[in-house]
Amino acid sequence: MSEHHVVVIGGGFGGLQVVNGLKGAGVKVTLIDRRNHHLFQPLLYQVATTILSTSEIAWPIRHLYADRPEVTTLLGEVNGVDAQAKTVSLRSGMVLNYDTLVLATGATHAYFGHDEWEPVAPGLKTLEDATTIRRRMLLAFERAEVESDPAARDAYLTFSIVGAGPTGVELAGIIAELAHFTLPKEFRNIDTRKTRVVLIEAGPRVLPAFAEELSAYAQKALEKLGVEVLTGTPVTQCTADGVTVGENFIPSRTIVWAAGVQASHAARWLGVPADRAGRTIVEKDLTAPGLPDVFVIGDTALVIRDDGKPVPGIAPAAKQQGGYVAKVIRARVSGKPAPGPFKYWHQGSLATIGKSAAIIDFGRFKLKGWIAWWIWGLAHIYFLIGTRSRFAVAWNWFWIYMSGQHSARLITQRETMRDDG
Amino acid sequence: MSEHHVVVIGGGFGGLQVVNGLKGAGVKVTLIDRRNHHLFQPLLYQVATTILSTSEIAWPIRHLYADRPEVTTLLGEVNGVDAQAKTVSLRSGMVLNYDTLVLATGATHAYFGHDEWEPVAPGLKTLEDATTIRRRMLLAFERAEVESDPAARDAYLTFSIVGAGPTGVELAGIIAELAHFTLPKEFRNIDTRKTRVVLIEAGPRVLPAFAEELSAYAQKALEKLGVEVLTGTPVTQCTADGVTVGENFIPSRTIVWAAGVQASHAARWLGVPADRAGRTIVEKDLTAPGLPDVFVIGDTALVIRDDGKPVPGIAPAAKQQGGYVAKVIRARVSGKPAPGPFKYWHQGSLATIGKSAAIIDFGRFKLKGWIAWWIWGLAHIYFLIGTRSRFAVAWNWFWIYMSGQHSARLITQRETMRDDG
Repeated sequence: MSEHHVVVIGGGFGGLQVVNGLKGAGVKVTLIDRRNHHLFQPLLYQVATTILSTSEIAWPIRHLYADRPEVTTLLGEVNGVDAQAKTVSLRSGMVLNYDTLVLATGATHAYFGHDEWEPVAPGLKTLEDATTIRRRMLLAFERAEVESDPAARDAYLTFSIVGAGPTGVELAGIIAELAHFTLPKEFRNIDTRKTRVVLIEAGPRVLPAFAEELSAYAQKALEKLGVEVLTGTPVTQCTADGVTVGENFIPSRTIVWAAGVQASHAARWLGVPADRAGRTIVEKDLTAPGLPDVFVIGDTALVIRDDGKPVPGIAPAAKQQGGYVAKVIRARVSGKPAPGPFKYWHQGSLATIGKSAAIIDFGRFKLKGWIAWWIWGLAHIYFLIGTRSRFAVAWNWFWIYMSGQHSARLITQRETMRDDG
Repeated sequence: MSEHHVVVIGGGFGGLQVVNGLKGAGVKVTLIDRRNHHLFQPLLYQVATTILSTSEIAWPIRHLYADRPEVTTLLGEVNGVDAQAKTVSLRSGMVLNYDTLVLATGATHAYFGHDEWEPVAPGLKTLEDATTIRRRMLLAFERAEVESDPAARDAYLTFSIVGAGPTGVELAGIIAELAHFTLPKEFRNIDTRKTRVVLIEAGPRVLPAFAEELSAYAQKALEKLGVEVLTGTPVTQCTADGVTVGENFIPSRTIVWAAGVQASHAARWLGVPADRAGRTIVEKDLTAPGLPDVFVIGDTALVIRDDGKPVPGIAPAAKQQGGYVAKVIRARVSGKPAPGPFKYWHQGSLATIGKSAAIIDFGRFKLKGWIAWWIWGLAHIYFLIGTRSRFAVAWNWFWIYMSGQHSARLITQRETMRDDG
C-alpha cells in the first residue's frame, strides 16, 4: 500500500497548521504556495508604515519543514483541481495526484465592483503591497516638500484610508503618528503636523466587530492622534486626485484600501457553491460539499457557527481549522473514528490605535488603553515564528518607543529610480 | 550679504561627509539625491545573499539632518549643471542657484561596451539590485527543484560571478556557503551541495588590489568553500542560458556582474575632461578644471596620488575627500587660507571570504584568517550609522553564526506573483 498523499495549497496560517498537525502521522505531504514565504499578515501594516522590515514578518516556507523529510515544499501556482481524477494542476504544467486535498488559499482585496480603483487605492495583502504603500506614502511627503501650489501640496499631505476594520484603524493611527511626531523636524518647506489622515467607514462605527463601547474608545483615541473619522459614509469614487465620500470630494494623493476581501478561487476550482464574497460553503467537517477528500479552510471558506454567525476571517480561526483538519486526516488514515464537527473558539478580538492604545474584546471581558496595548504586543510577539523574529520585532518596537524613530523608511522599487538606472 | 549656499549632489559616503563637515560653518546646504536613502554599499552583497535586510544598511537621508535646520534635503534627479550661471537643474524642472557645488554622484556598473548583458547579468549598486539578485538566486533553486531534465537542472544550479574584486569574492563565498550548508535539508529533489559557484576573473588573480600572498590565500579559501575560480579568462558572452569564458560555454541561469564601474555624468554636465571610465579628472584641491566653485569627489572623480596611482573607488577615500572639501569651503567662507592639496591616506584593504575567513592588507602589515574576519566585522559595524543598525547587523551576524540560518530569504517583487495578484 502506497503512502497517503496530502496536498496542501497555501502556506498561510491555515495551511501551515495542517502540515504541523500531520507531523508523525505517516502521511506524505506536499505544500504548495505561489510565494516562497509564509507571511505574518497581522503585522503587515507595520511594514507599510515603516516600523518593521519585510524579513521580520516573513519566513521561507521550505525552511520551516527542513526537518520533516516527508514534507515537500513547492513554489507554484494552482491552475485548477480535478476532484474526480483527484489531481491538482499547476500553471507550470505539473500535475499532482492527491489522496486528500486541503485548500487554504486565502483572500484578496475586494473593490465591490470597482476594480478600476485598485491602481489608485492599493490594498494590503502581500509584502509587495506593503512596500508599495510605504513608497507612495513617503513619496507624497517628498513631493509636498517641493510643491509650490498650496492646494496641490495639501492633496499630497492628505492620506485617505477606506475601511475602519483593524487594518484601517491601525494604518490610520501609525500614519498620523508618523506625520505628527516623527517627521516634522525633517522637512523645511512643509509642516507635516498639518497632514490630514482621513479614515472612511461606510458602516455606522469604526471596528464593527468589537463592542460599541470599544469602538467609541477607538474613535476617540484616533481623533486624539489627529485622525479624521468619517462613519456612515460610503466611498463613491477613487481617483489619482482623491476620494469622493458621499457627495464630498476629498483631494488626496494617497489612498489605501482596507474595506473588503474576496475569497480566492477555491469554490470555482471545485465547482461548488460559494457566498457573495466567493467563500466556499463547507460542511460541518470543513470538507467541500460532495467531496469528502477535499477540505477548504481559512479565509476562503464560509463556516457557519451554531449561533448562525460566520467564523471570522482572522488568523486564529484559520489555525483552529487547520488543526482540526489535521486531526480528521489522522483519524482517517489510522482508521479511527473521525472527530465531531469543527467548533470555533473565539479567543477575542484585538486592535491597536497608534503606539499606546489598544482594545481587546474577550466577549464578557473588555480591555482598553496601555494594558491592552501590552497584551496585544506580547501576543503578537508570541505568535511570530522563531527566536530571531521575536527578538527583532521586540527590538524594533522598543527602539521606536525610546527614540520615536521608525527604521524602515525606505523608498524602493523602480518607480523612484531614474529611467536608465 | 546673503548666506553662502552649498549644493551637494549625491548622498553617498562623500556627499554626507561634506554635509557633516559643514556643521556650524554658517552656510546653507542643499543635499540632493535621487534616492531617499543613504546606502552602506560595502554590505550590499549581504542583502543580495539573504543575510541582511534592506533597512539594516540604508537610512533616510533627511532623517540624518533633522537637527540641522540649515540643511535642506531634496529627493530629485539632476538634469544638468550650468557652471557659468551657477545653477543646477533637476528633472522635475526645479532650478537651484549655488555658490559652491559638490558633485558626489558615484558610479554604476560598466559592461565594457556590452550593455546588452545587463538584463541577464545584473550588477550590484542599489537596494533594488540586491533584491533582484536575491530573487533570481532563490528562484533558481526553486526551479531546479521542479526541473526534470538533468542538464536544465544543472544550469539552474550553476551561479556565475563575473569579476573577482571584493564584491565578486564576497558574493561567491556566501552563495557557496548558502548552497552547501544552509539549504541542503530543505529540498527534496535536488542536492544543493552539488551547486556550482564559478568566479570568473579576466586578470591573473583574485583581489588584484591586495598583495599576491593574500590573493593566493583568498583563492584557497574560496576553493575550500567549493567555489571554482577561473583567472586570466575574460568573459566573451553572457546570455540567459549561460556565460562564455574564452572559448568555453558554462550553462548557468544566474549571472552576477561585479566586473567594472562607470562614473556618473559629472564630467559631461560640466563639460570637463574625463578618463575612460568617465571619471572627472580633478585638480589637486578636488575642484573641476577651470571651475574653482565646483568640487567633484568619490567614485565620479579621478584623483592621482603623488606616486602616480589613482585614489581607489572605496568608501574611506570618498569620506576623506568629502571631509577635505568641507574644510576648503569653511576656509573660503571665513576668509582663511585654503588647506594644501588633498592627500589620500590609505588605511588598508579588507575583504571577506564566507563567514570565517578574511584578508586585510595594511601595506607593510598583512592579516588573514579569523582574526582578520573579526577586525573586518567590527570595522563594518563601527561604520554603520546609529545604534539601531549596529545592533541589528551584529545580531543578524551572531544569529547566522549560531544557527547557520539566513533570515532574509524572501522572494519579492512582481515577477513571482500571479498575473492578477
